[in-house]
Amino acid sequence: MDYAKEALKKHYEWKGKLEITPRAAVDSSEALALAYTPGVAQPCLEIEKDPEKSFELTRRWNTVAVVTDGSAVLGLGNIGPEAGMPVMEGKCVLFKAFGGVDAIPLCVRSQNAEEIAHAVALMAGSFGGINLEDIAAPRCFEVERLLKEQCDIPIFHDDQHGTAIVVAAALINALRLKGKKLSEVKAVFSGAGAAGTAIFKLLRTMGLESAVLCDIHGVVYPGREDLKDNPALAELAELTDPQVRGGLSQAMEGADVFIGVSAPGIVTGDMVRSMAKDPVVFAMANPVPEIMPDEAMAAGAFVVGTGRSDFPNQINNVLVFPGVFRGALDVRAADINDEMKIAAASAIASLVSEEELSRDYILPAAFDSRICPAVAKAVGEAARKSGIAKR
Amino acid sequence: MDYAKEALKKHYEWKGKLEITPRAAVDSSEALALAYTPGVAQPCLEIEKDPEKSFELTRRWNTVAVVTDGSAVLGLGNIGPEAGMPVMEGKCVLFKAFGGVDAIPLCVRSQNAEEIAHAVALMAGSFGGINLEDIAAPRCFEVERLLKEQCDIPIFHDDQHGTAIVVAAALINALRLKGKKLSEVKAVFSGAGAAGTAIFKLLRTMGLESAVLCDIHGVVYPGREDLKDNPALAELAELTDPQVRGGLSQAMEGADVFIGVSAPGIVTGDMVRSMAKDPVVFAMANPVPEIMPDEAMAAGAFVVGTGRSDFPNQINNVLVFPGVFRGALDVRAADINDEMKIAAASAIASLVSEEELSRDYILPAAFDSRICPAVAKAVGEAARKSGIAKR
Repeated sequence: MDYAKEALKKHYEWKGKLEITPRAAVDSSEALALAYTPGVAQPCLEIEKDPEKSFELTRRWNTVAVVTDGSAVLGLGNIGPEAGMPVMEGKCVLFKAFGGVDAIPLCVRSQNAEEIAHAVALMAGSFGGINLEDIAAPRCFEVERLLKEQCDIPIFHDDQHGTAIVVAAALINALRLKGKKLSEVKAVFSGAGAAGTAIFKLLRTMGLESAVLCDIHGVVYPGREDLKDNPALAELAELTDPQVRGGLSQAMEGADVFIGVSAPGIVTGDMVRSMAKDPVVFAMANPVPEIMPDEAMAAGAFVVGTGRSDFPNQINNVLVFPGVFRGALDVRAADINDEMKIAAASAIASLVSEEELSRDYILPAAFDSRICPAVAKAVGEAARKSGIAKR
Repeated sequence: MDYAKEALKKHYEWKGKLEITPRAAVDSSEALALAYTPGVAQPCLEIEKDPEKSFELTRRWNTVAVVTDGSAVLGLGNIGPEAGMPVMEGKCVLFKAFGGVDAIPLCVRSQNAEEIAHAVALMAGSFGGINLEDIAAPRCFEVERLLKEQCDIPIFHDDQHGTAIVVAAALINALRLKGKKLSEVKAVFSGAGAAGTAIFKLLRTMGLESAVLCDIHGVVYPGREDLKDNPALAELAELTDPQVRGGLSQAMEGADVFIGVSAPGIVTGDMVRSMAKDPVVFAMANPVPEIMPDEAMAAGAFVVGTGRSDFPNQINNVLVFPGVFRGALDVRAADINDEMKIAAASAIASLVSEEELSRDYILPAAFDSRICPAVAKAVGEAARKSGIAKR
């Protein structure tokens, strides 16, 4: 199918992929008096006395804002806030279809972190959580940090943390197949944008000890000249294996795991051949991966994952965000912390049984209806354990 | 019925009066590839080329934000943004049920006009219009002015303009009954808040020549001491009949029309008796009017209207806002100007036929399904005529 042409046609037909549906009738004077004036005064007064009641008497308990500035939409780059909206609407459809979450798309006409965060924070009383989407790095880190400071509801940048969680789930299962622990492998990361940064940090938190991060200039190491102007990257340099220098091809020599969220075609068969025996290759550049799966397999890869649905092992954050928000909303979590992210990754990984687990099947399928409930349960329990659940 | 108790119970049952419904399926890989990646890239690119396409390829064409700061909610006062949300949700239900408009409730955690306007303006690319609601005067005037400056979509403060339009419709028909023109009557206004100000201004624009505005300190006249600090009110003083001084009771002597959006019980039977013969009394303080209808009728009122559904002639802006926004959205109006407001008032008034028109029936009933289409058509045509319609 010509997706571009067909999708455009469908978008003209849909005239928007979302709409608002009333849950209360207003078809008689009686009904109107209950849903609107004068009856509505009573729930208002209850919330005035205790603003927490807004999670019971309005839709806030189930509502998430999906916020973009349009600066890093899909692989299209900085196309502007309005142009990002078809993706945001699509995301909101997924939130409802997979997680039962009511998600509202908001595009912000600013590319200044303080301004974006302040505008969104002022609206935070309308929502139970905020999902940041397609905001370019490093701005996304600052927007997220400011919002976490200013809001008492979960803030989650899906391009970072959703991706990190699903990659962690995929790696857990790839290593299950290999019979190795995370602490025993050497991993190389290509790409230090939003996703690359978050994956790198989460796996380090989960026990990965030997990790080398590469960006377009090669290995990110402490003291590298250009890091003076990039504190976020300088922080990551401190978490990188200090022995390794050079470019991506040097870094990959002897590595057990390659994790790419960078650029199409930058990994060759020879680079995969230089890795340790039976390497794991997650080549997630979209739509064209760092190395095509058949080429990676021919070069000896043991497991290959990509971002694409037309190859085995699609590493797709649709497995993650509906369940993560479902779980966070269900327990009124104040945040989505590392414990909750790790719990989500484990829950996704454990949905693949020993019998099912194979080189071509390390993650459950996107339409597996067990995923959201399992992730939500694990995330909710982790929030409770870490003391940030309000119910 | 005990509305307070029953409405609270219903609000706990509803758990929010709105939800989001997907209009696109995501139940297969094919469907997902059209509504989301990779297909969604194509509508994004179309909007990047021409941001106006956001009115065709996303829900923007049919979406309105309903925005409050919670500072003047119903008659409850400044109860805070979260506490205003049950009213905003109710309003959004009415938007959909009566006008087919998808309305999104947003409460803003600020009571600073610049801050509110800036935050909302930054989100304006997500919406086709903005309905301001329950924001206290004089802040509401400033928020509206700033938003009109900063946005290219219609901005409409319903407490001002929705009320002004329905009062104008009611007055048109009350004068039809009396066989008088607007230019021939003397009108007294009680209340110089959001609604009072807007009604006064709109009726002056429509041809009312003799108008006296009173606030809590009596007649608002040019040079009144306290107006130095209140430029909005000083502007209105210039539109007031210069001969009249004193309090509300002096102002009402000999007047043909009383329009109250002020305080319960402040008008006596004697004050109505002091008016001209067969006066029109719109006593719209809520829930207790300036004078009860039976008392006003006993004192000689010819037509009495209130804000209440349990008396004849309910003057209710639910007759207005669904059709006004339906019309403005349908023609992609850049604003909602006076011509459109006057067209809306005339359209509502003309739905009451000569045969139906009586002292107890000057406005169509709220559930009359002809209202929204008639208002929308008139508003759309007026927008086209005044050259602010984009389609």
